Amino acid sequence: MKKVAVILSGCGVYDGSEIYESVLTLLAIEQGGAGYQCMAPDIDQMHVIDHRSGDVMPDQQRNVLTEAARLARGEIINLAEANPADYDALIIPGGFGAAKNLSNFAVAGAAAVVNPDLINFARAIHGAGKPVGLICIAPTMTPLLFGEGTTCTVGNDKAIAAAIEEMGGRHQECDCSNIIVDETRKIVTTPAYMLAGSISEAASGINKLVDKVLQLS
Amino acid sequence: MKKVAVILSGCGVYDGSEIYESVLTLLAIEQGGAGYQCMAPDIDQMHVIDHRSGDVMPDQQRNVLTEAARLARGEIINLAEANPADYDALIIPGGFGAAKNLSNFAVAGAAAVVNPDLINFARAIHGAGKPVGLICIAPTMTPLLFGEGTTCTVGNDKAIAAAIEEMGGRHQECDCSNIIVDETRKIVTTPAYMLAGSISEAASGINKLVDKVLQLS
Repeated sequence: MKKVAVILSGCGVYDGSEIYESVLTLLAIEQGGAGYQCMAPDIDQMHVIDHRSGDVMPDQQRNVLTEAARLARGEIINLAEANPADYDALIIPGGFGAAKNLSNFAVAGAAAVVNPDLINFARAIHGAGKPVGLICIAPTMTPLLFGEGTTCTVGNDKAIAAAIEEMGGRHQECDCSNIIVDETRKIVTTPAYMLAGSISEAASGINKLVDKVLQLS
Repeated sequence: MKKVAVILSGCGVYDGSEIYESVLTLLAIEQGGAGYQCMAPDIDQMHVIDHRSGDVMPDQQRNVLTEAARLARGEIINLAEANPADYDALIIPGGFGAAKNLSNFAVAGAAAVVNPDLINFARAIHGAGKPVGLICIAPTMTPLLFGEGTTCTVGNDKAIAAAIEEMGGRHQECDCSNIIVDETRKIVTTPAYMLAGSISEAASGINKLVDKVLQLS
């Protein structure tokens, strides 16, 4: 059975992994006849957001791996201890955690840097010719992870598309029911909640992304 | 369009709502052509659990409504302010939060009591002849909410079944791909992660529960 590494960034759209995108990804992997292992970096979250008000909760400090474990019913490993050779593919769901904890794109824009353990893991997967899927805001990391010229989408946000181009990537517009595939590099991206107005809309693109990643693996 | 009230109890299987069950419920409601509104009580969680280790995090204090908002992308209301007349049905996903925050069944067993705002809301829905669905461990509240003789399932756990009977309910065994329907009282239950070994297995029963609840509404 093929096994997909799923890298999470916390638990909640505003400071971690987008929950619906993550669950839809895991469900689609299962329904595609493959298995998965969730993993996350053992680091502090950039901050904790009150998801009702949108405000930072200044007295709160949470760990990315500990909170991501909620999304995995405890079945999660430390990204730093994961062996890329154990997996046939990698998928990174979105949520602001991808741009706050896995990278710092949310605050640094085109000057963003990516978590070093994620760089090592993702480049090892990619370097072995295995496919990588990135969802929602996570594709902002593609030029930094996979080099100049990598084609991806975050939907139709012009400012983010410009930042991706500034980092050396190529952005293509895409609606949330579709995917963009860089066939040469085996990089698959979909906008999901960059554009989706409902869980079903997000599912339509995510199901296509997972199917394509499994097909390329 | 029919509208379903979904009552959450936090965000995470060990101290709140089970995430997969909650997302699968919302997705099935949408796919059934209905809408939903998430709601939760504005109370402290019984405790916060580290989902990797299973240990209580003694220095942490979290609010049920604030954490449940993660599962709803912020689109959530205070249960105490929800009007039962606005909804055609009620569904309560599982997770230990249903037995720690919505009731105290996890510590009190057959001597459990239910949150008073939940009692008021659920009895108003039920009293108006509208259906109620309860998932996983949440059906332990059925005799307390809907009176003696209510039939429900939590799967095949003999100790929990005995406690339900002691509270005046009737327990029927059920596998995770099926539902138990108390047709007279319009109460629908399914074991989900009381028995499920995968998201797909949980989905099979939850999809049937949501379909039945919508059909009865």
